[in-house]
Amino acid sequence: MTTRELLLAANSAKSAMAAASTEVKNAALTAMAAALIAHTPSILAANGADMEAARGRISDVMLDRLALTEGRIAGMAEGLRQVADLPDPVGQVLRTVERPNGLTIRRTAVPMGVIAIIYESRPNVTSDAAALALKAGSACVLRCGKEAHRSAAAIVAALKEGMAQAGLPAEALQLVEDTTRASAQELMAADGLVDLLIPRGGAGLIRSCVENATVNVIETGTGICHVYADAAADLDMALNIIENAKTSRPSVCNAEEVLLVHRDIAETFLPRLRERLTAHQPPVELRLCPRAAAIIEGVPAGPEDFDTEFLDYILAVKIVDSLDEAIAHIAAHSTHHSDAIVTNHEAAAQTFLRAVDSAAVYWNASTRFTDGGEFGLGCEMGISTQKLHARGPMGLEELCTYKYLVVGTGQTR
Amino acid sequence: MTTRELLLAANSAKSAMAAASTEVKNAALTAMAAALIAHTPSILAANGADMEAARGRISDVMLDRLALTEGRIAGMAEGLRQVADLPDPVGQVLRTVERPNGLTIRRTAVPMGVIAIIYESRPNVTSDAAALALKAGSACVLRCGKEAHRSAAAIVAALKEGMAQAGLPAEALQLVEDTTRASAQELMAADGLVDLLIPRGGAGLIRSCVENATVNVIETGTGICHVYADAAADLDMALNIIENAKTSRPSVCNAEEVLLVHRDIAETFLPRLRERLTAHQPPVELRLCPRAAAIIEGVPAGPEDFDTEFLDYILAVKIVDSLDEAIAHIAAHSTHHSDAIVTNHEAAAQTFLRAVDSAAVYWNASTRFTDGGEFGLGCEMGISTQKLHARGPMGLEELCTYKYLVVGTGQTR
Repeated sequence: MTTRELLLAANSAKSAMAAASTEVKNAALTAMAAALIAHTPSILAANGADMEAARGRISDVMLDRLALTEGRIAGMAEGLRQVADLPDPVGQVLRTVERPNGLTIRRTAVPMGVIAIIYESRPNVTSDAAALALKAGSACVLRCGKEAHRSAAAIVAALKEGMAQAGLPAEALQLVEDTTRASAQELMAADGLVDLLIPRGGAGLIRSCVENATVNVIETGTGICHVYADAAADLDMALNIIENAKTSRPSVCNAEEVLLVHRDIAETFLPRLRERLTAHQPPVELRLCPRAAAIIEGVPAGPEDFDTEFLDYILAVKIVDSLDEAIAHIAAHSTHHSDAIVTNHEAAAQTFLRAVDSAAVYWNASTRFTDGGEFGLGCEMGISTQKLHARGPMGLEELCTYKYLVVGTGQTR
Repeated sequence: MTTRELLLAANSAKSAMAAASTEVKNAALTAMAAALIAHTPSILAANGADMEAARGRISDVMLDRLALTEGRIAGMAEGLRQVADLPDPVGQVLRTVERPNGLTIRRTAVPMGVIAIIYESRPNVTSDAAALALKAGSACVLRCGKEAHRSAAAIVAALKEGMAQAGLPAEALQLVEDTTRASAQELMAADGLVDLLIPRGGAGLIRSCVENATVNVIETGTGICHVYADAAADLDMALNIIENAKTSRPSVCNAEEVLLVHRDIAETFLPRLRERLTAHQPPVELRLCPRAAAIIEGVPAGPEDFDTEFLDYILAVKIVDSLDEAIAHIAAHSTHHSDAIVTNHEAAAQTFLRAVDSAAVYWNASTRFTDGGEFGLGCEMGISTQKLHARGPMGLEELCTYKYLVVGTGQTR
């Protein structure tokens, strides 16, 4: 099918999806999980072909992201069952207003319609994204990178089997067949056929969507996250938070990339920091501003080091003279994802919480908590770094829109 | 100042605006109202110059929109005072989650930052939009059409005086000086300097913003609103609703443009409709589908009549065979603003309310109620016809975003 035909098919399933009961959607998710397990051999075979074609052409890290195993497929199935267990956001009455003229106005959560997701090479996104979009009552159009296309096609075939078994229209889930740039462009310009486009991937993909899309887009992901160790920081707590935020999973968007240290604690804190992070396995490379380099050893930081999402065991370190300078640095360099202050001084913390304009602002905790599961949403479609509609982790509610249902008895104005 | 300089000035006032207390903002709005009244002579003089320059170059309807009087300025001042009376949305805790690990996560309403509004020739939009943006804690950049620029400049000068008196930074309100297309384009592409762009005006302006903007935009306004008179409609109620929705103010976006009539009532209903609407002063021109034209006199409808926002005493009329056909027609032709069913049949009403994908869906009431005041929001910045962020009337809450404030005691993940 052409991309346009796929989009029309997804749109044809919109009203059936919006009308689907919670029971039917949950039964479908459970059946989709069972179908994934049942189709493990064909999914692994498709993934083997993807891996074969990709070897030597993409990095080992990317190859690992692409690889599926029986265990990873079981994990994807478990993810589907977890989405079945979440409350259904569709139809929730968000607010009721009774007007003096007798009108009843109910602001009610309703599905977006058709949600398109452009992603890269992780096959598990295929089932995660489909599960969330469908539970939120929307049809789902997936467009994955060409490296993962055989795997995604095998996964989608299994998922559609599960949907059909439970009585959901299989047309509500579509995988774009064209893996050239043209199909991504077509989704971005599919006014009237795509209600929401979510790019999940590198900064280039997201930038391209923001610049080129005429459909509604939610920007996700890029995270240049800061930890600021204040003059009044508990130094042990600061070390724990920084080590965790930097090293527990450096490849993800909520990992720390930049450390700001108040000058008053720099002399005592930086040697301890260096000791802790160089003792870590693997050790963390420190890229130091000139003042920090005068205190500890490390690589001199270039200016670009304070605007780089390393996604690696690298940390840029800068000494600041004040809380205000820390806030100003973050305003200038943050991607507005997650930023933290470590301090025992409540007034400083409150100032930081108010002034830092990011999706999640932390006081005495690691930035690594910015995550749908950790925030109690049960799941997430990605982390929004924009201000419109959803900010931070996007769960099922954030994948819905609302409309006003107005009931009267003949009122005129 | 260049547009870029204006934007930088507005951004420099962002944090002071975000930190401004409710009391200061309300005092500023009150002082702005007083300053408008005090500056009535200079505003009327500027408006007279605008009117002079515009006469003969724009339509009488547009001239009337442009014209200010002492009474209209008093109305603008009253609007400012009403915004002062509304609750402050900033800082409201929208949800609190206590996590098992001891983290407290508060989803908290915060200002957008810089809100830019592109509008056309109504001078009152200048003060209305400024009041709402400022009360919502954002700096405000206004870009009006060239016909209204002298009036807007005089109004903004008065408003800034009031702001400064109450201690709000006057930089937080900016009027773009350049009234060529270039300045609108610059606002659309001002990534990092404009947090939200709201176009208020004709379909062409809104389309241009959606196609060209890389900053976040909320589409407003265009309304091809439908009323569907069902087989089970109370005919008297239907006549009242249709007359009201069409004629009480035809130039606004929530006015009815298209009437759908179930075939079972067409023979009795259409003659009464024609009688009612042709007796109206001024009379309503009916543009009839062939089947309706076989029953009553009127102008034969061309296909474009079902996709036109007339904003005039013109109503397109079509007979449909079923509720489903009415829903399908609305899906194909509505701008997703406001659509209504008139029926005494509850199941038909519930189907319509669920299936029609518009910002406001009515059962037995006029579409003319889609309005911030009528919905109990106290005000509005416009009516969103998109699904992302805000749908329908946008009040103060919808002009805010949120962030997550996360407070811990050293938690790591």
